[in-house]
Amino acid sequence: MRPIDLRSDTVTQPTAEMRAAMAAAEVGDDVLERDPTLARLEARVADLLGLEAALWVPSGCMGNLIALMLHLRRGDRFLAPAQAHVLGSELGTGAWLAGGMPEALAWEGGPGRPTPAQVTRAAGSAGPYYTLRTTLLCLENTHNFAGGTVTSQADQRALVAAAKAANLAVHLDGARLWHAAAALGVPLSALTEGVDTVQVCLSKGLGAPMGSLVCGSMPAMIEARRLRKMLGGGVRQGGVMGAAGLVALDYLPRLAEDHAKARRLAEGLRAFGVQAPLPETNILLVPVPQASVAVAALEAVGVRTLPVGPAIRFIPHRDLAMADIEEALVRMEPLAHTCLGA
Amino acid sequence: MRPIDLRSDTVTQPTAEMRAAMAAAEVGDDVLERDPTLARLEARVADLLGLEAALWVPSGCMGNLIALMLHLRRGDRFLAPAQAHVLGSELGTGAWLAGGMPEALAWEGGPGRPTPAQVTRAAGSAGPYYTLRTTLLCLENTHNFAGGTVTSQADQRALVAAAKAANLAVHLDGARLWHAAAALGVPLSALTEGVDTVQVCLSKGLGAPMGSLVCGSMPAMIEARRLRKMLGGGVRQGGVMGAAGLVALDYLPRLAEDHAKARRLAEGLRAFGVQAPLPETNILLVPVPQASVAVAALEAVGVRTLPVGPAIRFIPHRDLAMADIEEALVRMEPLAHTCLGA
Amino acid sequence: MRPIDLRSDTVTQPTAEMRAAMAAAEVGDDVLERDPTLARLEARVADLLGLEAALWVPSGCMGNLIALMLHLRRGDRFLAPAQAHVLGSELGTGAWLAGGMPEALAWEGGPGRPTPAQVTRAAGSAGPYYTLRTTLLCLENTHNFAGGTVTSQADQRALVAAAKAANLAVHLDGARLWHAAAALGVPLSALTEGVDTVQVCLSKGLGAPMGSLVCGSMPAMIEARRLRKMLGGGVRQGGVMGAAGLVALDYLPRLAEDHAKARRLAEGLRAFGVQAPLPETNILLVPVPQASVAVAALEAVGVRTLPVGPAIRFIPHRDLAMADIEEALVRMEPLAHTCLGA
Amino acid sequence: MRPIDLRSDTVTQPTAEMRAAMAAAEVGDDVLERDPTLARLEARVADLLGLEAALWVPSGCMGNLIALMLHLRRGDRFLAPAQAHVLGSELGTGAWLAGGMPEALAWEGGPGRPTPAQVTRAAGSAGPYYTLRTTLLCLENTHNFAGGTVTSQADQRALVAAAKAANLAVHLDGARLWHAAAALGVPLSALTEGVDTVQVCLSKGLGAPMGSLVCGSMPAMIEARRLRKMLGGGVRQGGVMGAAGLVALDYLPRLAEDHAKARRLAEGLRAFGVQAPLPETNILLVPVPQASVAVAALEAVGVRTLPVGPAIRFIPHRDLAMADIEEALVRMEPLAHTCLGA
Repeated sequence: MRPIDLRSDTVTQPTAEMRAAMAAAEVGDDVLERDPTLARLEARVADLLGLEAALWVPSGCMGNLIALMLHLRRGDRFLAPAQAHVLGSELGTGAWLAGGMPEALAWEGGPGRPTPAQVTRAAGSAGPYYTLRTTLLCLENTHNFAGGTVTSQADQRALVAAAKAANLAVHLDGARLWHAAAALGVPLSALTEGVDTVQVCLSKGLGAPMGSLVCGSMPAMIEARRLRKMLGGGVRQGGVMGAAGLVALDYLPRLAEDHAKARRLAEGLRAFGVQAPLPETNILLVPVPQASVAVAALEAVGVRTLPVGPAIRFIPHRDLAMADIEEALVRMEPLAHTCLGA
Repeated sequence: MRPIDLRSDTVTQPTAEMRAAMAAAEVGDDVLERDPTLARLEARVADLLGLEAALWVPSGCMGNLIALMLHLRRGDRFLAPAQAHVLGSELGTGAWLAGGMPEALAWEGGPGRPTPAQVTRAAGSAGPYYTLRTTLLCLENTHNFAGGTVTSQADQRALVAAAKAANLAVHLDGARLWHAAAALGVPLSALTEGVDTVQVCLSKGLGAPMGSLVCGSMPAMIEARRLRKMLGGGVRQGGVMGAAGLVALDYLPRLAEDHAKARRLAEGLRAFGVQAPLPETNILLVPVPQASVAVAALEAVGVRTLPVGPAIRFIPHRDLAMADIEEALVRMEPLAHTCLGA
Repeated sequence: MRPIDLRSDTVTQPTAEMRAAMAAAEVGDDVLERDPTLARLEARVADLLGLEAALWVPSGCMGNLIALMLHLRRGDRFLAPAQAHVLGSELGTGAWLAGGMPEALAWEGGPGRPTPAQVTRAAGSAGPYYTLRTTLLCLENTHNFAGGTVTSQADQRALVAAAKAANLAVHLDGARLWHAAAALGVPLSALTEGVDTVQVCLSKGLGAPMGSLVCGSMPAMIEARRLRKMLGGGVRQGGVMGAAGLVALDYLPRLAEDHAKARRLAEGLRAFGVQAPLPETNILLVPVPQASVAVAALEAVGVRTLPVGPAIRFIPHRDLAMADIEEALVRMEPLAHTCLGA
Repeated sequence: MRPIDLRSDTVTQPTAEMRAAMAAAEVGDDVLERDPTLARLEARVADLLGLEAALWVPSGCMGNLIALMLHLRRGDRFLAPAQAHVLGSELGTGAWLAGGMPEALAWEGGPGRPTPAQVTRAAGSAGPYYTLRTTLLCLENTHNFAGGTVTSQADQRALVAAAKAANLAVHLDGARLWHAAAALGVPLSALTEGVDTVQVCLSKGLGAPMGSLVCGSMPAMIEARRLRKMLGGGVRQGGVMGAAGLVALDYLPRLAEDHAKARRLAEGLRAFGVQAPLPETNILLVPVPQASVAVAALEAVGVRTLPVGPAIRFIPHRDLAMADIEEALVRMEPLAHTCLGA
């Protein structure tokens, strides 16, 4: 039985068009000078995001890490929504490599979102010389572990305003910012207003084999390039990956299809009596009695998922057709009452 | 008007007996070999705590930092009760120097305390290779910013058991463990069962001019000594401070007097209509409408306090007599309705 | 005038065969599980080197950094030949990220090489607890800034033996170990005897667009994989690059051609009266009166080089034919007396 | 037989006058505000050194570490004379804590001293973005492991000028700057011209039980105070140690006596045929056939020394009278030919 892989939107295979583009890519040595294709990709993404400059990096983890390094001095506190990727999914590097002391903000503004008042309160005031110094707010849009939830333009604007009023820089982990913009029907640049740095990921949902971009002002990206070399992310003929990335961006107008797949999954599970929430984008978190048991049972019928705390996560993507979703539902129906909590 | 200093129990002056002991101290070079008086102090504290060994360090911050360095590898997550000193009051060093990614645990077990179930849940399970690894539980007894609250022997035992079951090491920030033991009427060693390392402070409430001890197994303290040298805490004729520390320990049986002073303060303020909680030890946190305003107003009448979030903090200590507390109440009464929220 | 690019062997373009292989690569998500093509590449390189396991990383810098992180604890000293890449060309990451205190060993054993006696002396003995601890010897073969010099199997064996006798681990920066083996006419595995970790680079001379491998024991590589994720080097469908790497390895038998090009360059320059040493591999360092002036003058006639201290560096590679070398000599002849020091 | 302790000038016992001063010290909480006696000490030392401000720290290691942290950003290279204390005697903290990549400069300007030309050469020029950045020159006067050697005012001025011309900051490890000034017969401030930060030590030769000062501009010291708190060097009633430090400074005019003792030791050993150099200050390094053997043999006759590489080190100090030196010579004479290399 062919497995239907819903573990993540990172499992996509490069398309034939990407493969052709990679094979034909114009390339140069991106350490010594600039690889022309990476340069084109960087310019296009900076333009899409309405920011001055962008820098390709091999992974979203590196993009976030570089951004934190740009903003944090030794021991500075940074704020992030509870369960943000930078807090729990990057192996502690925000602390030990970027030197930041995190403070998780509860989701008082809705799933995945703090309120502006929380930001103001947590930022604190100056205090005496021995006071922990808060200098950065990290946002995440969409918020992965909240279930791909979207922060609206208005909410994000208010959060950024609260951060700025407290003299905090703002980094936006936008690994799936594409999905937020698609869900909201706004241009990407509408979601970067006032933000200092953004990380967007080409291998989450868009299908590129690897690569993210960290984006911001030109001076920040010049320093980011140096940090990228330090961390080992400076590559030579990166244009091969740049070419795949340029093709990946062409998928942006079609992201709504993936959101529809996630919604169909939720509706199908609900029809079986499973307590599935209606997803806002392409991520569906379904709370189950025992996540590890459910993951294993689904795996046995050829539906691959991952446990996320007390839930199991489904992320449909471009490599799955709606028919695959229907097939997954057929396979899961017998398990609805045994291990999906219906 | 003579100020009555209730900002902290760190403001105490060395007593005449301490001064005499410092002047007469037998000393040696504690970097090259062992200072005999520091060695005596270390042995006495290890014995009091029921642990194998102890090491003098110049400050509680260094003691906690060394303990975190002992337990954490790059990027490991450590758990601590919300508002723990190691999270918010040590300038982020747990993150950037010890390399740990903190996770604050809400006080579901009472003020200053998580529950064992929270520890179990937060510790998580092993997960794949890219999972953040949780390896340490930090406790704080008494918990300063919860208002000097005490964790009982039974509660602490349950928390330690939960940590051990999840393969976590346990560090106890016991800067005021003296006060917890006094409040509970148990020996200090009753509060270190199963704990891997403890930090206790001689300059908080006991009156020593400086110095804390980090305590644990002999191998851990051998490594701690090396870390102390790295951080710049290796000193030469430290026995001068060791002598003060030995005298300071003689105050242990009298800590209940300071708890009584705090209680009297609370009762007096309540008699004025102020919403003061009844303190468990020597720390009284009084929520007020505007902490900075209240602190300034009290300062103007010769009562010195510090703001702690939305509250003001009173910490009576050995340098204040009960008469000073009564005098402070007399001075504060006119302010009860104007800025103390009565 | 078409520039002849002799700046580095990293400037090579992927061949048609590599491009085809990348386009056709079988790929998987190398973070969630293993990408099959990367796995094949890792197995092949481990086998070539006679080591248990290998791990693909985006760059040689990351490979060396991971190796140093594996070997060094906080503040440990590591030894490396003067002007080693890990000392001067990786932006200080051996110190601030891997936490190591370096000690440069002068080239008493020949260009790029310390002697075993130097290793023994520098390793020192145990000393008291406050002694800097030396735990690692880094070798570099071929040694880039010594002019691509080769350490023979016998010399390397003696250096490794001295390190082991002093309880040092050994890391071999083998970015161009391929060239050393080719020059010596020995299998690669002859140069990894007793070594704990090795880094070899696919984009230096072999033509891959990006990628290196860090190699060692299986437990070390398991930990290395975690460190790779931390640093941001965990990628998804990395098999695209793995496919290029597999093709790149096919160039190994032809490296002698590049050595011959370097030798021809040296002989040509010597014929003009320039003080060019005879290169051992594919790197030619020519001392000149003013490196920046010479680089600029050569650039003006379409010969691209880089300054390395007081010399200029020529690195012929697979994208240049012997005819290009001859053409470069023709272009340089007029400059021999003006700026090449003849 | 009473041991004559020549291991270090850190082994001195506090004098009766120091003990009395410590017992009588006026003190305050130096974390919350300023301890008055520490403040007096800091003002006096800043004035002596001709610098704007000073900050007391528990040890010279912490003073040097704070200075390096002030000057270095992630991965910056710093230059220091070979065998400088910051390179080999501070457990690698300049690298892993301050984040600096060191470069040792050979003693081409005399024992313990690089030349200005070496500084210029090592500082290098700007280079492309991936170039290691050199930002700091550390000097050490007197240079401990060169044998307490003095850098003259003129030599130091020239080194500082070379550093400034290359845009390097300058830190002076002046743990024994007192001895350099005494040997040269110049005021201390003559040796701090153009220097950005200095560390001077009260427990090396002057007799204080603990404590050093890091000195520089007012803004630098404000940041240094924060770093001191981070590292765990913020203490409460530090004035006890401040009082000892103020008394210790009164010994400055008598340092020449200790230099005379070292010279007498050297002359006495030379009279026995031992190859002892004539010391410039209070440190005498005597090369011997086997340092560990010599140290043990001297210990057996009640003369305590330490091995320093292939030599043994004698450091006379204020607790030894000239008669003790004569007695040490009497005890050593029988060993001159057996283990002191005569």
